[in-house]
Amino acid sequence: MEYTFSDRISGVQPSAIREIFKVLEDPTVISLAAGNPSPETFPAADMARIASDLFRDRPGPALQYGITEGYGPLREQTAARLRARSGVGGPDDDLIITSGGQQGLDLAARVLLNEGDVVVCEDPSFIGALNALRAYNAKLVGVPMDAQGMDVEALERTLRDTPRAKFIYTIPTFQNPCGATMPADRRARMLALAHRYNVLIVEDDPYFELRYSGAPVPAVKSLDTDGRVVYLGSYSKVISPGMRVGFVCAPREIVAKMTVAKQVSDVHTNLFFQMVVSEYLQRCDLDAHIADCRRLYVQRRDRMFAHVRGWGDRVRSACPDGGLFLWCELPDGYDGMALCRLGGRRKVAAVPGQTFAVDDQKPSPGFRLNFSMPTPEQIDHGMALFGEALDELLGC
Amino acid sequence: MEYTFSDRISGVQPSAIREIFKVLEDPTVISLAAGNPSPETFPAADMARIASDLFRDRPGPALQYGITEGYGPLREQTAARLRARSGVGGPDDDLIITSGGQQGLDLAARVLLNEGDVVVCEDPSFIGALNALRAYNAKLVGVPMDAQGMDVEALERTLRDTPRAKFIYTIPTFQNPCGATMPADRRARMLALAHRYNVLIVEDDPYFELRYSGAPVPAVKSLDTDGRVVYLGSYSKVISPGMRVGFVCAPREIVAKMTVAKQVSDVHTNLFFQMVVSEYLQRCDLDAHIADCRRLYVQRRDRMFAHVRGWGDRVRSACPDGGLFLWCELPDGYDGMALCRLGGRRKVAAVPGQTFAVDDQKPSPGFRLNFSMPTPEQIDHGMALFGEALDELLGC
Repeated sequence: MEYTFSDRISGVQPSAIREIFKVLEDPTVISLAAGNPSPETFPAADMARIASDLFRDRPGPALQYGITEGYGPLREQTAARLRARSGVGGPDDDLIITSGGQQGLDLAARVLLNEGDVVVCEDPSFIGALNALRAYNAKLVGVPMDAQGMDVEALERTLRDTPRAKFIYTIPTFQNPCGATMPADRRARMLALAHRYNVLIVEDDPYFELRYSGAPVPAVKSLDTDGRVVYLGSYSKVISPGMRVGFVCAPREIVAKMTVAKQVSDVHTNLFFQMVVSEYLQRCDLDAHIADCRRLYVQRRDRMFAHVRGWGDRVRSACPDGGLFLWCELPDGYDGMALCRLGGRRKVAAVPGQTFAVDDQKPSPGFRLNFSMPTPEQIDHGMALFGEALDELLGC
Repeated sequence: MEYTFSDRISGVQPSAIREIFKVLEDPTVISLAAGNPSPETFPAADMARIASDLFRDRPGPALQYGITEGYGPLREQTAARLRARSGVGGPDDDLIITSGGQQGLDLAARVLLNEGDVVVCEDPSFIGALNALRAYNAKLVGVPMDAQGMDVEALERTLRDTPRAKFIYTIPTFQNPCGATMPADRRARMLALAHRYNVLIVEDDPYFELRYSGAPVPAVKSLDTDGRVVYLGSYSKVISPGMRVGFVCAPREIVAKMTVAKQVSDVHTNLFFQMVVSEYLQRCDLDAHIADCRRLYVQRRDRMFAHVRGWGDRVRSACPDGGLFLWCELPDGYDGMALCRLGGRRKVAAVPGQTFAVDDQKPSPGFRLNFSMPTPEQIDHGMALFGEALDELLGC
């Protein structure tokens, strides 16, 4: 038979990134295209011990249905950790455990957006988020980025001209793909604009614990005094992404609606791993573990950025203070996609900037490099290959 | 600030069931209100051994991001098992792993339904499914049930009179809440009607392996020759619900869209437990384990049904051939909710039929009893208390 699909899913097109991921099917290709944390950072031995204890001592509760809001002790530990480390979460907030940070955004979109509502977002931004919003038929309006994150002057013009804006979607810290971090004054300005134009802010903050340099900047949510910010977080980048354990801290009323939406979506997040994370937080030292992750990643960032510096002024780039990504831009008129294609032929992969654009038909001079997954040797080899591709594209 | 929520989530109201679940907060209450498998059936020792091996041998892949479609070996094993045991899945079908059966339905609704589309379903039906459909603003049209499941004559009239029907949602085997199983000829008739009126069928089949009596009936999907059936299954009732591992077998084109929808929804299902299930299927004997589950449950079903028989003709009920539930109906004019309230006062809980009704404002003479969770002693005690409640409601 012929199938007719919903408008919402028809609005999500297979992206240009697929062409690049085809390159990755060849195992001899060096991938600088990932968004993954390094498996070396997974605290597998501690998790194994905890899992073994859970199977022995509490198999019934750990394998049974759980409540939608999430495992009680993990909710409390996560809320306490957020308050202590980022000042996120007040008396009018609540916290729900989600199946990764991705589900946090999906639930936010689901409970907040009606057909035709507008989401104002950084351009470029995380493709998984843009597609999640497109899947609710949201209209996306992009605001340009600079080295300090979303341009708040442009944001103001956008909000003024967009009557149906519902929320601002932002990754203010170590943004994906650009790596930029919004300074505190811009965050305050963004919040003031959200107040003036009566929109919410969805703050996606999966990377903030992976800071390698520079001073911490307060979370937008920590500056919020009138319940305007939905804060998305995750244990994916600091414990394990495969377990799919994330969280949302938001005004109680919003979390209540998200709970209804999650109930019909997947009932609850894998309970066993919620308990593993809870026990890990209690029995192990997550902060010490994160310090180890940072030591590993800062070396890889520096090593990769040294190569970028070696490319001279043919590529604009800024060294990010944290996260997993290095963003580079070719001179005006050149297409990041073309460079990635030339890289692909040399068996090295990166993600072309166009993938992250709000209008993904528009060429972008940018490309995104990941430094968390490749080994130092792979970084050296992969970046040398990209250097050759650059020579071919731009001339030496 | 004041929040405005999406129409879709505003359409899902907290259900009457909450009042009953309040009763359950008292730990001295005997619950016959659950939908859970018994924790005694969880193969925790085998799972513990497998988990320990995974942490030792493959921690990197098991804790890393996975692909949205699901863990390759588990997809193949599940597809092979479905073909062998139920004749489900042909050359034009594909299979995706979902975060429980609930997500299977959520994704089906998400890729198929537009605003105002109609879903034709059994009335009463599983509340979690009805709410998942309501959350896409689907209009639900109920078809009455009899002892043989959905009334297909009424189904034909409904399809004739409902131009925007998109799919039929059915639990044809050991239906929740009614326990009824559709005979093969009705299934064939339903499929023929779906063909004539050009609608799809979403077949929800979480219980089919829990058959205690009677001859197996072919899955609707196994009778399908033109790609009209989306089949939802789950490992929740035969291994563990807390791990949230389910699956959908459907025409390739539909699974492709569901994969896009799942990608933006939660990226993928907890990978570690996908691998645990895969290893379990390879190293252990799931069929032997299910035979053990059946031996436990058939005793509880029979024990509970003996009590119902003792209530005489004051309650209409039929002994279900499988599943987890016994459905009872009071004489005309009596309300199952009233009985459940009287039960609550005596510290025993069941779920009033109204909870499962398409129009959940309409009183129902029915109530649902679960026999998988209570021990034999709890069954005896709980049913005696319900007997007293019945005496009070109907007179002796």
